[in-house]
Amino acid sequence: MTPSSLLPALRGIIPPIITPLLGRDELDAAGLERLIEHMLAGGVHGLFVLGTTGEAPSLSYRLRRELIERVCRQVADRVPVLVGITDTAFVEAGNLSRFAAEAGARALVLAPPYYYPNSQPELLEYIRRITPELPLPLFLYNMPTHTKTVFEVDSLRRLADIPNIAGIKDSSADMIYFHRLIGILPARPDWSLLIGPEELLAESLLLGGHGGVCGGANLCPRLYVDLYEAAAARQLDRATALHAQVMRISTTLYRVGRHGSAFIKGLKCALRVLGICDDFLAEPFHRFREEEREQVRASLASLGITRDHPRPSEV
Amino acid sequence: MTPSSLLPALRGIIPPIITPLLGRDELDAAGLERLIEHMLAGGVHGLFVLGTTGEAPSLSYRLRRELIERVCRQVADRVPVLVGITDTAFVEAGNLSRFAAEAGARALVLAPPYYYPNSQPELLEYIRRITPELPLPLFLYNMPTHTKTVFEVDSLRRLADIPNIAGIKDSSADMIYFHRLIGILPARPDWSLLIGPEELLAESLLLGGHGGVCGGANLCPRLYVDLYEAAAARQLDRATALHAQVMRISTTLYRVGRHGSAFIKGLKCALRVLGICDDFLAEPFHRFREEEREQVRASLASLGITRDHPRPSEV
Amino acid sequence: MTPSSLLPALRGIIPPIITPLLGRDELDAAGLERLIEHMLAGGVHGLFVLGTTGEAPSLSYRLRRELIERVCRQVADRVPVLVGITDTAFVEAGNLSRFAAEAGARALVLAPPYYYPNSQPELLEYIRRITPELPLPLFLYNMPTHTKTVFEVDSLRRLADIPNIAGIKDSSADMIYFHRLIGILPARPDWSLLIGPEELLAESLLLGGHGGVCGGANLCPRLYVDLYEAAAARQLDRATALHAQVMRISTTLYRVGRHGSAFIKGLKCALRVLGICDDFLAEPFHRFREEEREQVRASLASLGITRDHPRPSEV
Amino acid sequence: MTPSSLLPALRGIIPPIITPLLGRDELDAAGLERLIEHMLAGGVHGLFVLGTTGEAPSLSYRLRRELIERVCRQVADRVPVLVGITDTAFVEAGNLSRFAAEAGARALVLAPPYYYPNSQPELLEYIRRITPELPLPLFLYNMPTHTKTVFEVDSLRRLADIPNIAGIKDSSADMIYFHRLIGILPARPDWSLLIGPEELLAESLLLGGHGGVCGGANLCPRLYVDLYEAAAARQLDRATALHAQVMRISTTLYRVGRHGSAFIKGLKCALRVLGICDDFLAEPFHRFREEEREQVRASLASLGITRDHPRPSEV
Repeated sequence: MTPSSLLPALRGIIPPIITPLLGRDELDAAGLERLIEHMLAGGVHGLFVLGTTGEAPSLSYRLRRELIERVCRQVADRVPVLVGITDTAFVEAGNLSRFAAEAGARALVLAPPYYYPNSQPELLEYIRRITPELPLPLFLYNMPTHTKTVFEVDSLRRLADIPNIAGIKDSSADMIYFHRLIGILPARPDWSLLIGPEELLAESLLLGGHGGVCGGANLCPRLYVDLYEAAAARQLDRATALHAQVMRISTTLYRVGRHGSAFIKGLKCALRVLGICDDFLAEPFHRFREEEREQVRASLASLGITRDHPRPSEV
Repeated sequence: MTPSSLLPALRGIIPPIITPLLGRDELDAAGLERLIEHMLAGGVHGLFVLGTTGEAPSLSYRLRRELIERVCRQVADRVPVLVGITDTAFVEAGNLSRFAAEAGARALVLAPPYYYPNSQPELLEYIRRITPELPLPLFLYNMPTHTKTVFEVDSLRRLADIPNIAGIKDSSADMIYFHRLIGILPARPDWSLLIGPEELLAESLLLGGHGGVCGGANLCPRLYVDLYEAAAARQLDRATALHAQVMRISTTLYRVGRHGSAFIKGLKCALRVLGICDDFLAEPFHRFREEEREQVRASLASLGITRDHPRPSEV
Repeated sequence: MTPSSLLPALRGIIPPIITPLLGRDELDAAGLERLIEHMLAGGVHGLFVLGTTGEAPSLSYRLRRELIERVCRQVADRVPVLVGITDTAFVEAGNLSRFAAEAGARALVLAPPYYYPNSQPELLEYIRRITPELPLPLFLYNMPTHTKTVFEVDSLRRLADIPNIAGIKDSSADMIYFHRLIGILPARPDWSLLIGPEELLAESLLLGGHGGVCGGANLCPRLYVDLYEAAAARQLDRATALHAQVMRISTTLYRVGRHGSAFIKGLKCALRVLGICDDFLAEPFHRFREEEREQVRASLASLGITRDHPRPSEV
Repeated sequence: MTPSSLLPALRGIIPPIITPLLGRDELDAAGLERLIEHMLAGGVHGLFVLGTTGEAPSLSYRLRRELIERVCRQVADRVPVLVGITDTAFVEAGNLSRFAAEAGARALVLAPPYYYPNSQPELLEYIRRITPELPLPLFLYNMPTHTKTVFEVDSLRRLADIPNIAGIKDSSADMIYFHRLIGILPARPDWSLLIGPEELLAESLLLGGHGGVCGGANLCPRLYVDLYEAAAARQLDRATALHAQVMRISTTLYRVGRHGSAFIKGLKCALRVLGICDDFLAEPFHRFREEEREQVRASLASLGITRDHPRPSEV
């Protein structure tokens, strides 16, 4: 069995879906449906459920399962659904992986266990132990700011002999690292190399990456899809112009609020302002207060983003 | 209701109990019983279940509950049992707190949610939201190397108006911070101020702290209890000599192995060598291989620690 | 007076010249001449003396002055010479700036004072105080791994009203930061935005940067010049191919040796192997021993780099 | 030649003298005299010139030499003078060491070169190369927050064979590290183990340290001398009470201002308020503005510190 038999190599924009909530343990089910259709209408190539942007670690296991079920049912295989199973406990990660497979997910995403700092040998052994137990192809998720443990390039090179690893999602924001990752591809041409931060999407695609897990594609899916397609067509000037649009969003909308949580809060708030879903956040976060919401509304207006035209207007 | 009505102010040595395992989801129940009796025989003043030393985040929720039940039943209120409920998900922390209360635990221990870095306002709001839902007195657990979020002294000062907070466990290893914590005590004389790293136990007790959550007390409970009592009796020379014993353990036994996990691995391995319990570790860790086990055995011999004489011999 | 009256906007490759040494306080004068001619023959657009790659902080002030004089005399204005004046002491930075101006340098490069961590208000005040005393246009040098202080984007935006600032050299390796820097350019279209790490040269040029301060251009000047020209001509495929060459150098030659100093050591060693200059390094570094030198020699051979053909062969 | 032939083992309080300035390159010579006499009157056991508290890296070399000369002349061997020679350039450190010896200093203090991060092998080689060139006994200065390089305990253990090393000044604020340093003393009983942060003075002295390099002793010399003497006499309760006084200073006076520089700024400001010397600071710092000066004045008043009674009043 190889990943390719289960999942054709992923290319394109796979948004990390925010989790619409009405309360800390209650999904905004109607908002979730609208959000999924909003993204699919924008042409996204997959959906990633239960990532960092999706507040996965803040959600109860019950709600995580409900979310997986609802997303898989609503998407109905129009695009592949990827499910984050990152967990500090090996057993719980395995449990969720089986649930996801039964619900119809097509791949899993796993960051290192994130309470204890891990050494590279410990990390390698962890991956070697868990991959045989997983029922779906796996993306390794590099997210050192949150997990404390980096997947070193040499470690990933060693893991290239594991068949059901399907690729890497790199959210380190370290482009030198990303360029070194590309050097692994000759050993695993079937891998997909996806980048996290959308501000780095253009260069990653122009220089060898395969796609992006862009939080902003919850809001403006077509913009990121267009950027992917421009890069795939080697249209440098168009890609540069679309990258500038991404930077306009990044330097306005994501900079309301002062803390590290500003990105998720701003994104959820914008989706609420557009009427797509609620903006409740699970602890330890909380939604923007009225003052920040006004700034988000003003930011959307200045960008020209509306529900009917969910992308920045040309400048 | 104040904490003191439920729990007299904690003073002394409250070991963070390691979790004896036979496999990643199987308790070493007989070993657990021996370990508890070993520590109680050494005079410890409480037991802390599901801490960092106990590998809590690596255990399935099912196993966490089994552990709580077994420890509470075995201890049978001979000393208070504290239960760690730290979780990235608010709902799961609450669930575990209720289970612990029903099982007979006397207090809870909570570090900040540890996937996302938290700002101080977010942390304060989190604590204010969760404390009313907890059925037992709460110790705040400062562990920034693992949680990324520090409880700043000014934040703790603000939280002093919450009645069911019973104290602080500080594992920051930052003694300047600890001395500043002591400055909060006039506002909350009922709080217990406990220190994590056993290498700092002597000075914390001599200069105003109330006790220690010493991992080494799994192995040598009487040593730490003696140090507590010497400090409480203001016997400086005796406390200094016992501190030197603690440093001998720290600079030999805990330094087998090269990674951050050396402390837990060394402790479990030593308990296995003494025949107290198994040394299986849950992922992402794994037990010492034979080579390191030999070093642990040699280290125990050079320290003069045996099961019948579980403390370093005088030098 | 504006910088443009003294220095046309810098574009292209401005190598940070390594400092050829025969001993800790003795220049390799003949090697320095050969190195300068080697780089000028490769078409570089400027030379940056006394940077991080040049071991500036490790050199005596006497030697720093001798170096400035020799480089300026040898270059004789064929390209502009930039001189690093970064210093923990304000007075010494000023002294060196005047010496450089008299020797014929065309611009200065200044990182924050690097012993104490600086707050942004302190950094802003420092820059506002020192710029009026400098006799040449100034590049601000962002190098937080070594200086501990970042030039935050908002701080640079505030400094845009200082006329004799001519641009920014960013060695943070943080491309999101770099893209945000580009957002300052509308306020200062005369600024040059130069990137440090050569692994990021391609994308910085493709998406709005103006040039690179590439250490590797000491060895293979034409490669980086070609990459600059390809990007300037918007030739995406050629730029991508040249970027891959840069990555081949980066992942072989710069990875001999285990410490952070591997880059400088590898570069100097390669120049020595090619017969261009000596490879002595000032303390706290020291040149590669024979074993590492053999690895460098093998790496050069596998890349196909020779003194007559100082660039990787096509693959 | 051994250090002991030049310098009896240092014990006690050796304040890191602040550098009184009238301008960025002008000493406040009269203030310096008053400050020295103020400290000697308080019973200090030595003086440390050109440390972190003394703003050494921010001063021109000319001023550093003037300062060394003036301090040595004024002290006239009433206590030993130690001179900081930390420098990024080996040659400049050597130059200053010879100047200091000729001026009458009794020992040198050296932190690692602090621009480049150093590996431990590089650090060891650096120390082995520089010690033979130094004309006076040397204290190694551990200050990783500012130098980026820690003197690992194992490295110091290896350096114990160098005769003219006389001790260690540890400003890491890491008491576990400090306790491990004590374990080196059997190999070098002649070494002095001095602690930097005054908040840790009490415990370091009670548990095996030899003295403190306390910035606060510029202001309240007798307080720290008394604490040293109480600990030396094994008077635990008195040492605890004096430690509480130190914490009162630390949590009020040193917490005016928001940046890392608050300690030096607060100390200089307090000395100015008491009329001892000017409070000018060299770049990158600047003296407190009027608002902060008022807070310092209020803090001194609440502590009961006056020029005639330079220590906190009993509470």
